Amino acid sequence: MFESAEIGHVIARKDYRKQEPVLRQALLAAQYQLLALSRFPVIVLVNGVDGAGKGETVNVLNEWMDPRHIRTDAFGAGDADWGRPEMWRFWRALPRKGKIGILFGSWYSDPILARVMGHEKPAQFALRLERIRHFESMLVSEGAVLVKFWFHLSKAAMRQRLKSLEADPKSAWRVTTQEWEHLKHYDEFVSVSEKALRKTSTGDAPWLVIEGTDPAYRSLTAGRYLLDAVNQRLNGKAPVAPRITPVPPPAIDGRTLLAAYDYERRLARKTYERRLEELQSSLAQLTRDPRMAKRALVLVFEGMDAAGKGSTIRRITQALDARHYRVVPIAAPSDEERAQPYLWRFWRNVPTHGHTTLFDRSWYGRVLVERVEQYCSEDDWMRAYDEINAFEEQMVQAGAVVVKFWMAITPQEQLRRFEERKNTPYKQYKITDEDWRNRDKWPLYERAVGDMIDFTSTDVAPWHVVASDDKLYSRIAVLTHLCERLTQALSNKPSRKKAS
Amino acid sequence: MFESAEIGHVIARKDYRKQEPVLRQALLAAQYQLLALSRFPVIVLVNGVDGAGKGETVNVLNEWMDPRHIRTDAFGAGDADWGRPEMWRFWRALPRKGKIGILFGSWYSDPILARVMGHEKPAQFALRLERIRHFESMLVSEGAVLVKFWFHLSKAAMRQRLKSLEADPKSAWRVTTQEWEHLKHYDEFVSVSEKALRKTSTGDAPWLVIEGTDPAYRSLTAGRYLLDAVNQRLNGKAPVAPRITPVPPPAIDGRTLLAAYDYERRLARKTYERRLEELQSSLAQLTRDPRMAKRALVLVFEGMDAAGKGSTIRRITQALDARHYRVVPIAAPSDEERAQPYLWRFWRNVPTHGHTTLFDRSWYGRVLVERVEQYCSEDDWMRAYDEINAFEEQMVQAGAVVVKFWMAITPQEQLRRFEERKNTPYKQYKITDEDWRNRDKWPLYERAVGDMIDFTSTDVAPWHVVASDDKLYSRIAVLTHLCERLTQALSNKPSRKKAS
Repeated sequence: MFESAEIGHVIARKDYRKQEPVLRQALLAAQYQLLALSRFPVIVLVNGVDGAGKGETVNVLNEWMDPRHIRTDAFGAGDADWGRPEMWRFWRALPRKGKIGILFGSWYSDPILARVMGHEKPAQFALRLERIRHFESMLVSEGAVLVKFWFHLSKAAMRQRLKSLEADPKSAWRVTTQEWEHLKHYDEFVSVSEKALRKTSTGDAPWLVIEGTDPAYRSLTAGRYLLDAVNQRLNGKAPVAPRITPVPPPAIDGRTLLAAYDYERRLARKTYERRLEELQSSLAQLTRDPRMAKRALVLVFEGMDAAGKGSTIRRITQALDARHYRVVPIAAPSDEERAQPYLWRFWRNVPTHGHTTLFDRSWYGRVLVERVEQYCSEDDWMRAYDEINAFEEQMVQAGAVVVKFWMAITPQEQLRRFEERKNTPYKQYKITDEDWRNRDKWPLYERAVGDMIDFTSTDVAPWHVVASDDKLYSRIAVLTHLCERLTQALSNKPSRKKAS
Repeated sequence: MFESAEIGHVIARKDYRKQEPVLRQALLAAQYQLLALSRFPVIVLVNGVDGAGKGETVNVLNEWMDPRHIRTDAFGAGDADWGRPEMWRFWRALPRKGKIGILFGSWYSDPILARVMGHEKPAQFALRLERIRHFESMLVSEGAVLVKFWFHLSKAAMRQRLKSLEADPKSAWRVTTQEWEHLKHYDEFVSVSEKALRKTSTGDAPWLVIEGTDPAYRSLTAGRYLLDAVNQRLNGKAPVAPRITPVPPPAIDGRTLLAAYDYERRLARKTYERRLEELQSSLAQLTRDPRMAKRALVLVFEGMDAAGKGSTIRRITQALDARHYRVVPIAAPSDEERAQPYLWRFWRNVPTHGHTTLFDRSWYGRVLVERVEQYCSEDDWMRAYDEINAFEEQMVQAGAVVVKFWMAITPQEQLRRFEERKNTPYKQYKITDEDWRNRDKWPLYERAVGDMIDFTSTDVAPWHVVASDDKLYSRIAVLTHLCERLTQALSNKPSRKKAS
């Protein structure tokens, strides 16, 4: 992949002088149009070989354009937040729509260096590249322009560079033993990088390899490519991820997953109270277990209106230490959240080790309300299944236990609860016209829930459907399952398969 | 201050059973009203002696109310972010309007423990308390309900508690050598705490000391006090900070600060180009000085429309490493920012050590555009001077160099630039109807600028006014001053006094 970046590309000084002002002005114009429209973000990755001009290019791009609307972040190998998924820090650095984000080092530095240094096996490396493909494909589907620069130097050029730096007293300090160390690893580095580029150079987000020897050549090349990428999108449509699966049809025998549960199960209040106390006590002990210091807990509550999510959540938090949990109720996104990819607002709430986040509604809104109400396109919610699975898998890999509940009620029970709310003074705030409108869409929701569970009940983060027409039975079922999952997780047994 | 919290307060079990459900329901109702209005946040501080029920009370409050709308954060001594001002992490944890934030430990833990352990002298302790008074007064003026709980135990009760915990095998693990260590320091701890409480128990934000021996007593006391505080505000008006200074009148001789500068100064392009290169080279070296690793750089650019802020900022960023700076253009706040105290959106952009933030317009909007356009009340902008000084002082104390430029132009020059923009195709986006409207308010702005400089040009963060009718002269003046300030700061000389 690096062949044509070792042939000594060079631009004459006078050509550079002629072309540079034209390019600058065009870039600036594109940047302001991007900002004025604020329809999509531009993400520029800057990676490559030591001394190939990465930092200089980042500076040149900031110099050419208006730095007020560029966000630059530098990422090194190994400076991850160990309590959270690997990608967390990159999600935090994404530019909002209309802005340009330059990510120096980006999500490639750590996987490549870990492999070069032998800290990670090939399988692990391949897995991380796969995760990156997923992530980049999500970014592009969400409308981002993703530009990936790789700055290259041949081994000879790299050695030559170190020697000339050392020869000049003014620049000799720039050459440390680390620089020579990297030169020693040049061949492995290039071989590992080649694999990374090959595996992640997709149609959506190809790499551009740029020879880094001549500053004029590399700056103009990077600038023009960026300009073309931005202008192309400004003048065209956002790409859509190619979809292979058609929307699943309803089952031809008319049976649905949710109808298959037994909604008649009841629990006597006395039994409930005894079990509640036992289970809350277990949960209190489990969440205070020293092994939780390397674990996080993510709880997801979904269900039709009035399914009992809020009251169940309170039965759980009663057993938790308030210093270590947070409940995140999901309502309409803020404007900062709207300017980011869909999952951004959930990523910002991912708990670190030792902490619990309870989501009262969640990222599943994408495949439930947004699907039913057509707030997003079919393509958007169809790709969400896969993105959500990847998101949850990353949390699990970072040590989180992800437990998801669908609190299932029958339409008859929902009606009864709505009427009760309407007639109880201090519950009236809980019932709105929208709740009544949603009832009319029950069959659409039922189908969406079925698809959701089929697509996203995974080994690592299975759905647990709880028949919730009886609140007492339902709360005990949730607590029982939660304690089981935590017990399993703490003893490192594999998690259960599929929805139960 | 602790006398009445050592007399053995206790509530009979049956009284608690009667009162608790009533209190819960009232708290929940108040919480929902708070949320529905979303007019102000409620901030609850939980501090006190070890074992006096702090954690338990935090849990009880979360249990009684809806935890989905409570944000709980725990802060220990010494877990500050050393690259940023001490208060930074607390700003990040403030609840938005309509929500309740419980801050366990809060901003009191660290000052008190540092004093008890002798890590800090009395003068430093007094200074930190003063800063807290300032901060709390700002919170209250911004409309927050601030409730401060101190849970107390007598020394005898504390010893008794440790002994009974140790006696029971099930709880013996809770008593570590650290607990006994704290008991040894009990007298100093109480004496230092007494001073902290005394100095910070203001009319706006008094402490409530609660005896912690009996769980029923302490929970009911805390719950009721919180309920009263919230209800009082729900039914009344936000307090306004008492203002001592009247709005400064214009000088009676009609002379203004801005008119006192020489706007005729010009620089030849050739001299400009030579000086620009020299100064950018100095700036590049200064910002890359190893001593900058313990420093941050905060640059503020203010000036009338078309004063040249943007183009000057670019002359500066050209000399910086893009990986270490960020330009923050200040426009209308996002909805998340609007739900917080005024300075919140600037705090979130405070750079950490080794980094630079350039603000293109800044927190001074409060005393400029918001004053002139009456976006906030006179009380709001009058107290802003003091709040801003405190904000900048905190940044400086955390190692930041704060450099503020007022780029001064004459109305004639502004008109010339507006016309030029109107007639230059690629500059037309820079000129709007609002710019023309603002011109009409020139005298109001001029007065606001004079007051701003008088009130906020401090020893630690002086204003530098630059006559900017000539762009070349102005840019060189800005760069020269910036390099001087950095040189001084790096050699630890005191910064210059007053506006120059």
